[in-house]
Amino acid sequence: MAQDLDKILGGKYPAKAHANRVADLIKARGGGDSGIIYIEGQKTRMIEDNDGPMPFRQRRNFFYLSGCELPDSYLAYDIGKDELTLFIPPIDPESVIWSGLPLSAADALKKYDVDVVLPTTDVNGYLAHYCSAEAGANKVFAIPDQVSSEITFLPFKETDFDVLRPALDTARVTKDAYEIALLRQANNISSAAHTAVLKAAKTAKNERELEAIFISHCMSQGCREQSYHPIFASGESGSTLHYQKNDDDLIDASTGQKKLNLLVDAGCESRNYCADITRVCPLSGKFSPESRDIYNIVLEMQMASLAIIKPGVAWDDVHANAHRVAIRGLLRLGILQGGDEQEIFDKGVSVAFFPHGLGHYLGMDTHDVGGNPNYNDENPMFRYLRLRGTLSPGGVVTVEPGVYFCRFIIEPYLSSAELSKYINAEVLEKYWSVGGVRIEDNVVVTEDGYDNLTTAPKSLEDIERLASGQA
Amino acid sequence: MAQDLDKILGGKYPAKAHANRVADLIKARGGGDSGIIYIEGQKTRMIEDNDGPMPFRQRRNFFYLSGCELPDSYLAYDIGKDELTLFIPPIDPESVIWSGLPLSAADALKKYDVDVVLPTTDVNGYLAHYCSAEAGANKVFAIPDQVSSEITFLPFKETDFDVLRPALDTARVTKDAYEIALLRQANNISSAAHTAVLKAAKTAKNERELEAIFISHCMSQGCREQSYHPIFASGESGSTLHYQKNDDDLIDASTGQKKLNLLVDAGCESRNYCADITRVCPLSGKFSPESRDIYNIVLEMQMASLAIIKPGVAWDDVHANAHRVAIRGLLRLGILQGGDEQEIFDKGVSVAFFPHGLGHYLGMDTHDVGGNPNYNDENPMFRYLRLRGTLSPGGVVTVEPGVYFCRFIIEPYLSSAELSKYINAEVLEKYWSVGGVRIEDNVVVTEDGYDNLTTAPKSLEDIERLASGQA
Repeated sequence: MAQDLDKILGGKYPAKAHANRVADLIKARGGGDSGIIYIEGQKTRMIEDNDGPMPFRQRRNFFYLSGCELPDSYLAYDIGKDELTLFIPPIDPESVIWSGLPLSAADALKKYDVDVVLPTTDVNGYLAHYCSAEAGANKVFAIPDQVSSEITFLPFKETDFDVLRPALDTARVTKDAYEIALLRQANNISSAAHTAVLKAAKTAKNERELEAIFISHCMSQGCREQSYHPIFASGESGSTLHYQKNDDDLIDASTGQKKLNLLVDAGCESRNYCADITRVCPLSGKFSPESRDIYNIVLEMQMASLAIIKPGVAWDDVHANAHRVAIRGLLRLGILQGGDEQEIFDKGVSVAFFPHGLGHYLGMDTHDVGGNPNYNDENPMFRYLRLRGTLSPGGVVTVEPGVYFCRFIIEPYLSSAELSKYINAEVLEKYWSVGGVRIEDNVVVTEDGYDNLTTAPKSLEDIERLASGQA
Repeated sequence: MAQDLDKILGGKYPAKAHANRVADLIKARGGGDSGIIYIEGQKTRMIEDNDGPMPFRQRRNFFYLSGCELPDSYLAYDIGKDELTLFIPPIDPESVIWSGLPLSAADALKKYDVDVVLPTTDVNGYLAHYCSAEAGANKVFAIPDQVSSEITFLPFKETDFDVLRPALDTARVTKDAYEIALLRQANNISSAAHTAVLKAAKTAKNERELEAIFISHCMSQGCREQSYHPIFASGESGSTLHYQKNDDDLIDASTGQKKLNLLVDAGCESRNYCADITRVCPLSGKFSPESRDIYNIVLEMQMASLAIIKPGVAWDDVHANAHRVAIRGLLRLGILQGGDEQEIFDKGVSVAFFPHGLGHYLGMDTHDVGGNPNYNDENPMFRYLRLRGTLSPGGVVTVEPGVYFCRFIIEPYLSSAELSKYINAEVLEKYWSVGGVRIEDNVVVTEDGYDNLTTAPKSLEDIERLASGQA
């Protein structure tokens, strides 16, 4: 498998194939079958009141069509000629002294899957030449607010700022073999980093130490960037869905006792492609009975979700099914009560414990494009679901059910005249210290099911074995 | 010393004293002795085309007057009343579900050295009330382009956008005991991280592995942010002053041999206060004869610089003196020739080997405010010197001489009709593989000399001992 990955990733990032796909989608949307797709990379930007640059993050759409990670670059794709032209910064003698030689045009042509490489000083000339050479109508497709002021579209008869972005969003949903290899590599490295954290959790003193282990593991394997701000949440902080402080001690200051669990939601990028993985472990090495109850329910939610993933399945249904598994589990524990599965599902009571969506598209953005969420959905169960619609082959989704004991979220249910009867406050009392449990893997939808990219251990036995310091 | 640090840093960051100083400086600059100093923290900003926030970096001037690291906050200092009011984001029920409870006003009042804490929704009301209560003239001092559009200065008779920033720049030059403690803490942690890198350099395979060790060491000690993008440069990359790729193998691909040296320029922030430290080590554990030659010259340059640091000394003179030490050393080695020290100094030939400034102010910015550089200086020897003027007690400077063998920089001298005679190209040939040597410490100017904050090993013997794997 490692050899397969190396083989695929030894080739060029398939920018040309991506340009072809986007051009086809533009055509399908009535954009015509000629014209220029024009797109710019992210600029070098300075930190405010400072002479240092901000951390650089390449524009994803630019990378998709170029495979180029250089700041201050431009790209033009001539649809009619099927010719991809990359414009890279020319040599600036002043900056060579400080930063060394930039990539040459010849080396860029070898490195990237493009047809022509020119210096960025040639962009306007290229556009003007295209328009003058084009006898008939000519057209440029671009993204609103992402065209520099020094670029002129004046020579074009037509400018289209509407069709390019949706075409890119659609194209990016379906990952090709190269993209899946990058996602798999990010997953392999992030999974190993999760394992390193599991092994260190018992002896660490502070969340930050464990975050440091995770990040350094990813970096030393070549992945400098994290896909998102990692979450290292101990004890009840595990119920704060976007906890990012990561600076608490693992001992509870009020009791002097070790907190129960650690929730780690973290993943690195491999050449802009993201991993997004969550694991939970007991800080003592052994889950408390209540933690074990919840861990088992969440794992069951994930297994049930995975079992039904295949092309054509509506993600709403997978999400709803996970809620049903949660309801049955919480009824068994006595946390939910006062109605059967269907009644509790219809009343939306499980949203108190599983308030977020089951998963989202994953790609160059952690919450990747093309998911069509509806954050105004009247039904709270679906309001935060970032992916609506049916799955198709090549789609990559996170599968991340969770059960949380978050006071801010649950208390309104406890004080609701209509809903409080479905929750047993006395049983619930035993579970606050569990914090939250989420188990998150990244899977590719295949022709007949799915392929799980995430290799971090997740069985209760493996988690306890690693967290207790056994090999 | 560690106890002293803990004692100082256990207290509050002295925001009020800073506000007093800035008000005094405004008065000294003719701004009057009443009015409001108004300043805003950095906003939460989203990554373009993404639903995640950009990495947060607090505005330094805001932190200086508040000690507050919260995004989206505001500050007003009533000069006449000597009253510092901090405005922090109010509770947003929607975000509590995701992010937990924000800091309360009561807790903020305990945590920060301010007189009043109000929600940010009260800013305009506060300003209007100030103006209506103020019988006479009233005035607001602010920083251009750093006042949000929702804030109105309409009630003020006078707005002054000129005096606040220079007053802050001046105030920030002289560090107080609390600030020095933070700089010392950042130096202690960064120095230990440098030592960890030195120990790992012999067995590491890639620059990135060593960068990972540095960053994880800082993070695990509580310092999540690096002061600047670290430089981990092996072999000839050490001569690229702003090398940041940090992804090369430590084996030279063309020769299959281990590269000679590693240059590490890295430091972490402690609550926004920066360390900025450079060390060089031999990747084999033992310096080559040429590397040793150059290391000794650079260390001599640094020692000679430190020896003359005290209040009243012109930084230009310390910088020029370091050039003289370099010239004498390079004459001894035979790299320089054809003239005496004075002639070579006057011709600026040493700039070919030591092209940057000796050091800069250090504080909340790595290249801190107040240095008055002149990047258009006709003399190349002083063009990149970021600090011009005389030293005074409480000023913190980096002392970072270097000698580099950078082809882009040296070759113009070699091909100059006037200057080539001063460089022996044959002797020089032996030195290219040294790359670059820089030794950088951070020192506070004291009443009668200096205090070196940097504790990372730097004697040739210590460097070789650590880099060769001996304790």
